[in-house]
Amino acid sequence: MNIKYILNLEGKILIILSLFMLTIFPWVFYWHETQLIKPLLVSFLLPLGCGLFLLYKTRYAEKRFQIKEAYFLVSAAWLTMGIIGSLPLYLSGAIPSFTDAVFESVSGFTTTGSSILTDIESLPKSILYWRSLSHWIGGMGIIVLVVAIMPQLNIAGYQLLSAEMSGGINYEKIKPRTKDVARRLWMIYFAITVAVVVLLMAGGLDFYESLCHSFGTVATGGFSTKNDSIGGYSPYIQYVITLFMIISGINFTVLYFGFKGNFKRVLIDTELKAYLGIILTVGVTISFILWSKHNLSPEQAFRDSFFQVVSIITATGFATADYLQWVDYAWFLIFLLMFVGACVGSTGGGIKIIRHVVAWKFIKRSFLSLLHPQIVKHIRVNGTMIPDDKAVSVIAFIALYIIIVAFSSVFMAALGLDVQTATGSVLATIGGIGPGIGEVGPAGNFSQIPDIGKIYLSFIMILGRLEILTFLVVFTPGFWKV
Amino acid sequence: MNIKYILNLEGKILIILSLFMLTIFPWVFYWHETQLIKPLLVSFLLPLGCGLFLLYKTRYAEKRFQIKEAYFLVSAAWLTMGIIGSLPLYLSGAIPSFTDAVFESVSGFTTTGSSILTDIESLPKSILYWRSLSHWIGGMGIIVLVVAIMPQLNIAGYQLLSAEMSGGINYEKIKPRTKDVARRLWMIYFAITVAVVVLLMAGGLDFYESLCHSFGTVATGGFSTKNDSIGGYSPYIQYVITLFMIISGINFTVLYFGFKGNFKRVLIDTELKAYLGIILTVGVTISFILWSKHNLSPEQAFRDSFFQVVSIITATGFATADYLQWVDYAWFLIFLLMFVGACVGSTGGGIKIIRHVVAWKFIKRSFLSLLHPQIVKHIRVNGTMIPDDKAVSVIAFIALYIIIVAFSSVFMAALGLDVQTATGSVLATIGGIGPGIGEVGPAGNFSQIPDIGKIYLSFIMILGRLEILTFLVVFTPGFWKV
Repeated sequence: MNIKYILNLEGKILIILSLFMLTIFPWVFYWHETQLIKPLLVSFLLPLGCGLFLLYKTRYAEKRFQIKEAYFLVSAAWLTMGIIGSLPLYLSGAIPSFTDAVFESVSGFTTTGSSILTDIESLPKSILYWRSLSHWIGGMGIIVLVVAIMPQLNIAGYQLLSAEMSGGINYEKIKPRTKDVARRLWMIYFAITVAVVVLLMAGGLDFYESLCHSFGTVATGGFSTKNDSIGGYSPYIQYVITLFMIISGINFTVLYFGFKGNFKRVLIDTELKAYLGIILTVGVTISFILWSKHNLSPEQAFRDSFFQVVSIITATGFATADYLQWVDYAWFLIFLLMFVGACVGSTGGGIKIIRHVVAWKFIKRSFLSLLHPQIVKHIRVNGTMIPDDKAVSVIAFIALYIIIVAFSSVFMAALGLDVQTATGSVLATIGGIGPGIGEVGPAGNFSQIPDIGKIYLSFIMILGRLEILTFLVVFTPGFWKV
Repeated sequence: MNIKYILNLEGKILIILSLFMLTIFPWVFYWHETQLIKPLLVSFLLPLGCGLFLLYKTRYAEKRFQIKEAYFLVSAAWLTMGIIGSLPLYLSGAIPSFTDAVFESVSGFTTTGSSILTDIESLPKSILYWRSLSHWIGGMGIIVLVVAIMPQLNIAGYQLLSAEMSGGINYEKIKPRTKDVARRLWMIYFAITVAVVVLLMAGGLDFYESLCHSFGTVATGGFSTKNDSIGGYSPYIQYVITLFMIISGINFTVLYFGFKGNFKRVLIDTELKAYLGIILTVGVTISFILWSKHNLSPEQAFRDSFFQVVSIITATGFATADYLQWVDYAWFLIFLLMFVGACVGSTGGGIKIIRHVVAWKFIKRSFLSLLHPQIVKHIRVNGTMIPDDKAVSVIAFIALYIIIVAFSSVFMAALGLDVQTATGSVLATIGGIGPGIGEVGPAGNFSQIPDIGKIYLSFIMILGRLEILTFLVVFTPGFWKV
């Protein structure tokens, strides 16, 4: 393994991270939180120094990069961001426990949004800014991952994306050069961020809150600066965030096609149709339940239902209502959505729609072959044939995901959590959702979980964010054999 | 479709069923329950008359039998057994609601063991005999299904069995003629039944109780004649039943090899090893939990743990302890076992071990291919290569199973059950287990479920018993196209 080049890239990540930390300082002065200057300077200088040192030491590194290096780098990058990103939270005293600070930071950079904070509003505002910014940085990282790295790693589900981007039917529409693609998707990411800020400010929020919530939305993160998340804001704000959570859960490549006016391509997208179809079906069902069983006005039933549904399916994790207070079958639908996830190629988490689509087509095919054993029809997504072995790896991914959820739930329960909280905490973190069920629901938080559980869940967040295999493979003995 | 021949076979099933009903009469006289003679005579004569009528009407039916006929016959057979088998329960007044009687009867013939009875011991003993006998008849039906029908229906997982029985590595060991094979497996089934009766009588039970519990054990059914299931019996009785539940969960073909002294073949059986491995691992883990957390004596911790673990994994459903009273992570392990199931080719229910083995090997292979994309290694079970498309259909089966559990749970919750009871009732019935979690746990029963839910769960029991696809395919429009 080309350790030198990995260290070189790690150095660059550290420097980028420290530069992002610089943006906290304007807020420190704006909010007169000058007691934070010293700890924040340390938080800034430490990664900068380490980064520069690494860059200097590895300046002659050969820029050779193979598949193993990619796995290792990506895993190391998120670990680094999680740990280094915890420095402002920890050194400022905002989060007194280092384990807690790392959990919160990992939750930020993986765009999860699970929190150990019991009183968010008691934290300094510039620290809350950093907490929200970590979502946005993590989201940018995801785009690099999705565009540049995943398609080459044979991660189940991403070959579909890569086919589309570099040799599939739309070859001519998006230039295959990775840097260009990443730049274009970043542009869309940036545009959505600005749009949300402007629309939230138009709804009466100040720039600070608009910016923080914009970060949480576009990165499908879910950290809010308020104790009651989005619940205290006006219906207008809630609708804006609902809409942009939906948009942020769409494959950015598809968004790019839309941006370029190629609506034909957008409209035929199988995954997009399934994504919107699920949101609509579950959203309408729960609206009806909230209206008929909980006596909400039709408008509020509609708003509460769609906000929660969208927040969970996109793995954002903002809340305007506590779905655990709904009748059992309403929150059970929300629970099932935790297994669904957003579209591939977005910042959303979870298993992801395209995998479910492929798996479902496969199940349907095996079923039909009972009656017509002689017919072997290949599965198609967006008109492209999916080879059997790719489809199989997708199903294997889903199975592995569920196995990890099951066994991790047992582990968390063995730490003393009740079964709902145990399962909820694992689902919320592996899927990058934020709130789960049980005590870690929208009205609860992760503060009561024992330290060992927080550390475990931090790994689970990275595992989920890196599509499981990327992270897991680094821990296999086979990986380290020459 | 050759309806005439199907009706002919249906007629035979009805006659066989009525002949089994004859065996209730000795118990009626033995227990002096002569008030039951009239309703039982009606229950006996009705299927006998219908059966003879069908046989007469279809005496010239052409004995042509294709794949569609097989699906239809099997589905119709279990529906018929469920409905006709409810007559003694309903007409005798033992179960006053017809829906309840059908639920109980379907639960019997599918060897599920879920019950709507709140006070079992208040029922006439000859009726309880019929209830237990329905398990035994259902178990015999399963053997026919497994040996003669499933392997030809392309049902995921059964091709493995069929390869083994009629062309695989052990061709010379078991003669391929279906009737012979069925007869041999029935012989084993019969031998186990006798062995259990003798061993239970040796432990002090009378012939009646020994017989009834033997039926429940060998068919992995779970109906007991006692309100507290096996809990009131001596440790000796509990150990005997634990042992024979384990045996009854083993592939009968493998048992046959063992019976013939071919231990080499028994010992290399992948599924058997996994089955015993899971029982041992979970059993020891829970023993330890019961000993350390619940202060049970080591012997009782061991006995309670293994009894419950074996009862759930084999989908029998007898109980000697209420696992829902255990600490959360102990009963959560039991909950996970509900997804496992026994070995294929046994009377046990659930997803079944072999499917998990195949799925796991597949997941492992996709995982390894990340590091070594060039290597394509085929999966082997018992030394036989599993073609990819067969393995895929196995994974698709597991996925379909879980999807049905999820959506059925939502449906049951929509009827007003809490989520645990809803999920528990579906898992307990589709897997043929008996007790679930929530209010349908080992200390509860299914009496509180609304009628529509009982009817739905009756279908779910048949669906699970017939390996889902066999039953589901009959309800597709494509099935009825010429």
